[in-house]
Amino acid sequence: MQQGGEMQQGAASPGERVVVIGGGPAGLEAAWGVARLGCPVTLVEWAAFLGGTPVAENYAALTPNFEDAEAAMQRMIDRVSPHPLVDIRLRSQVTAFDEREGGGFTVTLSSAGDGSGTSTLDAGAVVVATGFQHFDPGRETQMYGYYEYPDVVALQDLEAMLKDHNVVRPSNGEPPERICFVQCVGSRDRQIGNEYCSKVCCGVASKEAIEVRQQLPGCKVFIFYIDMRMYGYWESQIYWPAQEQYHVQYIKGIITEVLPKDGKLLVRGEDTTMGRPMEVPMDMVVLSVGMEPSLGTRLTAQTLGLRQNKYGFIDAAYPPLDTVSTSRPGVFACGAALGPSDLEDSISSAGAAAMRAVVHVRDRSSVTAAG
Amino acid sequence: MQQGGEMQQGAASPGERVVVIGGGPAGLEAAWGVARLGCPVTLVEWAAFLGGTPVAENYAALTPNFEDAEAAMQRMIDRVSPHPLVDIRLRSQVTAFDEREGGGFTVTLSSAGDGSGTSTLDAGAVVVATGFQHFDPGRETQMYGYYEYPDVVALQDLEAMLKDHNVVRPSNGEPPERICFVQCVGSRDRQIGNEYCSKVCCGVASKEAIEVRQQLPGCKVFIFYIDMRMYGYWESQIYWPAQEQYHVQYIKGIITEVLPKDGKLLVRGEDTTMGRPMEVPMDMVVLSVGMEPSLGTRLTAQTLGLRQNKYGFIDAAYPPLDTVSTSRPGVFACGAALGPSDLEDSISSAGAAAMRAVVHVRDRSSVTAAG
Repeated sequence: MQQGGEMQQGAASPGERVVVIGGGPAGLEAAWGVARLGCPVTLVEWAAFLGGTPVAENYAALTPNFEDAEAAMQRMIDRVSPHPLVDIRLRSQVTAFDEREGGGFTVTLSSAGDGSGTSTLDAGAVVVATGFQHFDPGRETQMYGYYEYPDVVALQDLEAMLKDHNVVRPSNGEPPERICFVQCVGSRDRQIGNEYCSKVCCGVASKEAIEVRQQLPGCKVFIFYIDMRMYGYWESQIYWPAQEQYHVQYIKGIITEVLPKDGKLLVRGEDTTMGRPMEVPMDMVVLSVGMEPSLGTRLTAQTLGLRQNKYGFIDAAYPPLDTVSTSRPGVFACGAALGPSDLEDSISSAGAAAMRAVVHVRDRSSVTAAG
Repeated sequence: MQQGGEMQQGAASPGERVVVIGGGPAGLEAAWGVARLGCPVTLVEWAAFLGGTPVAENYAALTPNFEDAEAAMQRMIDRVSPHPLVDIRLRSQVTAFDEREGGGFTVTLSSAGDGSGTSTLDAGAVVVATGFQHFDPGRETQMYGYYEYPDVVALQDLEAMLKDHNVVRPSNGEPPERICFVQCVGSRDRQIGNEYCSKVCCGVASKEAIEVRQQLPGCKVFIFYIDMRMYGYWESQIYWPAQEQYHVQYIKGIITEVLPKDGKLLVRGEDTTMGRPMEVPMDMVVLSVGMEPSLGTRLTAQTLGLRQNKYGFIDAAYPPLDTVSTSRPGVFACGAALGPSDLEDSISSAGAAAMRAVVHVRDRSSVTAAG
């Protein structure tokens, strides 16, 4: 009954549909919001499943609340999937995008893999939620040996181990006795071209450090950082417990080199608080890799003709007082497609983008009705 | 024509109004979103003007884009005020809040000051956007001498001077030759009970430091910090230019005392990078005060029966995947009423809250229609 009531009250005229591109947390939230506002929505995801990076990369627990990531994403999926106004297209991508006569867009979708070809949709507005990918620590930053030494891993590799409750040294399958995190890998780095701070890595590394201490109470955990950016409540929710309850050791320092030595990894750098060089043996090194625009974000920006910033993220056109408009009227973006974002940023901006997309569709309907 | 079209398409049945409490950036955005989604909205503000803290505290420029704060707020006000679905109540506050039979709320407004008494409104949903206030650096933190030495000021005091292009030492009206900012005043501090990081002070102080250097090119500017929390694009938008173009000097250190000496202020503490005590003379000291819940946030939470966290901010009920629901169904919150927020956080969460409030009203209408 309720859904029927919703449809009758639908703000959009038939065919004035919103297309949401990307099925991660931001896309799921945006699609849900649009549908709940009474507007038909097509959710386009090029993977074979919804849930985005938390599912694709096997995240263990959400930051900062330690909720099981897969269960949380499933809850978002279960809320969206059965809604009668939601049309989900998996293994699909937007391959062409044209302005319609009289406004709105024609969106061409191509199915990946199964050869079922292309289809087109009319859309009154579009929300881009194509997210980020983890910085590849092999690119230009060879000094940490990610592809050389098996016990050098990245944040998402450790996530997967934590999810399996199987944190072991990849080289020998033994639980590590000493782990360190190296912050700002692929962030705050002019040499590789990523001057921005990736925002979440301090929180995610600290969350993982706590989980390591929970799963392996005998393992010593160190975090080498430039600045600990535990903004807002993360300070008291993660950073203080990490130190006080879990005895994670935070060391302000620059790591310059990771080398193998006697079956361990030798981590070299400078302890900047003590003002002295340091050389510490570790069983595992975790690279806190930053965020880069996903391939989906880059391709979608190109296909839709959206201005990108120098890093390839989609440019918000009028920040800070409009966080979701892009350079193209009628196309909104949210979440990490716009740049480094935590989950709360993604959910809030997705909700805002849903609102703005439906307002755009309503305005178009009003103009059409008046004309 | 367009507005008429909107109203005909209105999702809410007559009387199903959203009440937005607070007329700052978040409240203005939320009210605008609700109205643009076709739902009548009453915007309640207890001051005699809209614009919130940026206007009340005479902010000079927005962080991070340096846009004139008053002009930016006026733009938001001008967008909301003429909308036919928006009813603005200045000098008003919510003094009672009751659940209606059959759902929804009865909101009692009292006019402040002019004795015009009280009125009531029926509301289908409520958005609380009552914001923050600056930490009072006289409270429990006497060591910086805010109320003792006129040349010790706070971030918002310097904002007002920058807005007037009149940065002078309050003690003698002369332009300062050396200014320092002391970060984390009222934040990250268990002793005063504010364990959280206030999130924006690193960015705001750095923005003000740049403005000081622009207005007084001969003035040396120092920032004493624990961690510089310049997350996301602030790193490259503010932090790098502050250092490279404007030669703001960042010193990792703890300031323990500010004392008057020979007509200047002696700033004492420890340079933690150099590992040595420091004692530096300054003409002005700027305390980077953090965020606390505004009186409006505290009172509104009590009147509406919303769960607050230990700091007095309104608790988001289900973070991080629902950023705007409160402990009371039908009541949403956004912006700094929920805790430390930058402008982008406030605008995004306000947009999300507008969406959620209208969805709530639509659901109620559907149920009523079905019944």
